[in-house]
Amino acid sequence: MKSFLSLILLSFSMLVSAQESISIGNKYSIYSEVLGENRPYWVCLPAMYNNPDYGKASYPVIYLLDGDTNFTTMVAIHNRFTKGMYCNMPECIIVGIPNTDRTRDMTPSKSELIRDGKPLFSNSGGAENFTNFLTKELRNRIDSTFRTSGYNLLVGHSFGALFAINTLLHHSEAFHAYVALDPSLWWDNRKVYSEAEKIWKTKQFQKRNLFVAMAKNEDRPDDTQKHSATIHQFCTEVLPSSPRNGLTTAWKYYEAEDHGTVILPGVYDAMRTVFEGIELPVKQIPKNPGLIKEHYRKLSERLGFHFIPSETMVDNIGKYALSIEDKKGAKAIFEYNLKNYPDSKNALKSLSLTEGY
Amino acid sequence: MKSFLSLILLSFSMLVSAQESISIGNKYSIYSEVLGENRPYWVCLPAMYNNPDYGKASYPVIYLLDGDTNFTTMVAIHNRFTKGMYCNMPECIIVGIPNTDRTRDMTPSKSELIRDGKPLFSNSGGAENFTNFLTKELRNRIDSTFRTSGYNLLVGHSFGALFAINTLLHHSEAFHAYVALDPSLWWDNRKVYSEAEKIWKTKQFQKRNLFVAMAKNEDRPDDTQKHSATIHQFCTEVLPSSPRNGLTTAWKYYEAEDHGTVILPGVYDAMRTVFEGIELPVKQIPKNPGLIKEHYRKLSERLGFHFIPSETMVDNIGKYALSIEDKKGAKAIFEYNLKNYPDSKNALKSLSLTEGY
Repeated sequence: MKSFLSLILLSFSMLVSAQESISIGNKYSIYSEVLGENRPYWVCLPAMYNNPDYGKASYPVIYLLDGDTNFTTMVAIHNRFTKGMYCNMPECIIVGIPNTDRTRDMTPSKSELIRDGKPLFSNSGGAENFTNFLTKELRNRIDSTFRTSGYNLLVGHSFGALFAINTLLHHSEAFHAYVALDPSLWWDNRKVYSEAEKIWKTKQFQKRNLFVAMAKNEDRPDDTQKHSATIHQFCTEVLPSSPRNGLTTAWKYYEAEDHGTVILPGVYDAMRTVFEGIELPVKQIPKNPGLIKEHYRKLSERLGFHFIPSETMVDNIGKYALSIEDKKGAKAIFEYNLKNYPDSKNALKSLSLTEGY
Repeated sequence: MKSFLSLILLSFSMLVSAQESISIGNKYSIYSEVLGENRPYWVCLPAMYNNPDYGKASYPVIYLLDGDTNFTTMVAIHNRFTKGMYCNMPECIIVGIPNTDRTRDMTPSKSELIRDGKPLFSNSGGAENFTNFLTKELRNRIDSTFRTSGYNLLVGHSFGALFAINTLLHHSEAFHAYVALDPSLWWDNRKVYSEAEKIWKTKQFQKRNLFVAMAKNEDRPDDTQKHSATIHQFCTEVLPSSPRNGLTTAWKYYEAEDHGTVILPGVYDAMRTVFEGIELPVKQIPKNPGLIKEHYRKLSERLGFHFIPSETMVDNIGKYALSIEDKKGAKAIFEYNLKNYPDSKNALKSLSLTEGY
């Protein structure tokens, strides 16, 4: 009875602390047959995902490598860019994948590099397996658990960025947009680098996007890998400078950032670049509500995927129209929102604010 | 008995969900006598704050206005900048203060502005009360609950940035560094603006820092407040361009950011600017371990406050020295860490790695 009571007390204390915690998502796990191990994954859902008053929207998914260390950064940037009326990216589901054996999973080949008589990366070369885990097992789990739209992004840093570029080369159907932050392109005598040089000249892509961020790292004279020089050469000589064969690329050099700090501004700029053109000319919309649809039509065409504007954002714009006394504009905006989200009580309620017009 | 059982079941289900949540801090509240209301506050502690193996360090505190909406952003930037060996700011305790009546608390005077026959800001002018809450009631609570070092920062956006500059003018002893993101300096016929013009010419500051971020907003021709033009004029004409009377200021214009998106890059640059010089020349340290102390002596002198380097960072640098086979350097680095954190089991354990040297 005593242990029973302390169990209840424990449960209550957890109850209290659970109420007080500031949560940005939840942790789950899945057993991977391909990898033969249990894999944790972290998920952050858009703010209104579970709000019963809002329409049941479907969302793009961001697959984030080094998922634990980069999770707060990705969530912070996503929340900034999907707030209010001036949105720089669509609301997304963020899936962070923490590592169990980073070198094994991220590297596309077995490196024979030896230092002091010992192999440096003895367990490397598992990228193909990890791709299967990511694009089959985990993807199935995410798509069957959450309301996903089918548009997928992959974000990686360092070895994770090498993995992202390798995936774009060999499994370009798996993700629509790839973000490579300071990629380790020196890997295995520039294996991925050399493949890109060949493959990109001829391969046809289904409207894929790649953003590469390059930090300021000085390669030491005795450094045979030449991390930074390799990225720079890749960005200037290998990346097509304009859209080619369905692949659109962009890159940016960060003078003020090192290999670690480049992640935050890199993701920030990557989201803006991939979703360029998503920001609406808000002030013009009350007089010309059709602009929203036209804007999203262009965006969808450019990205090769059908995007519709978020309910919250359009609702905010409708309320802005009301605030400047444009009931006609507000009505059209709310009607458009209700058309996109016919099951939304919120959109219906907003529309009722324009009654009598 | 049935309700008793369901209570247990509920507690257990909460227990499970509590384990799965990704938490970045905890929510608390305090009753404010000055404001006559209950005030929530959110707290994020440094990663090793509660780790019994680490020394009991004391930390600067960041007081963050609009504390709920800006919390994840501040935590993400803090975590990035305090990771590894190249740190751009010290580890801090982050205290976010959500609003109850934003206009009342942030504004230093009662505005008589009328729109369509109604007063626009009828409840304005409570900044003095809110300053008392912040610097007495909440400060006492934070300082008596957590291990604080005594160095305090204030971060505000828009009306919150107006409040920050007003606090620097009239209560400059309250915080050491002030971050004003796109401040609403148009408030009440440029009240704070005009006061700054007069006060900054003569007032002596005890080594205070101010960083102002300015977004790209176009003031409409019919806009009498001229939000952006006012900030621009303030930054170019009122802010001293070099340290004066103990006040160091910096400002940056963000061509690509609007009033909302300026927050993230603004806080990012603000932390780097306030703590400029904190980043260590890591590669030189194994050969010259005294550089850490010398570096922090200069930083402390510039900021007028005694800073010591974080235990985790110095430990990382010591381990880097070990990785390049510099046992002598590593030993000196770990010894220095143990001197700063004499109660740290971790620092002692690291030092033992250099045994035999």
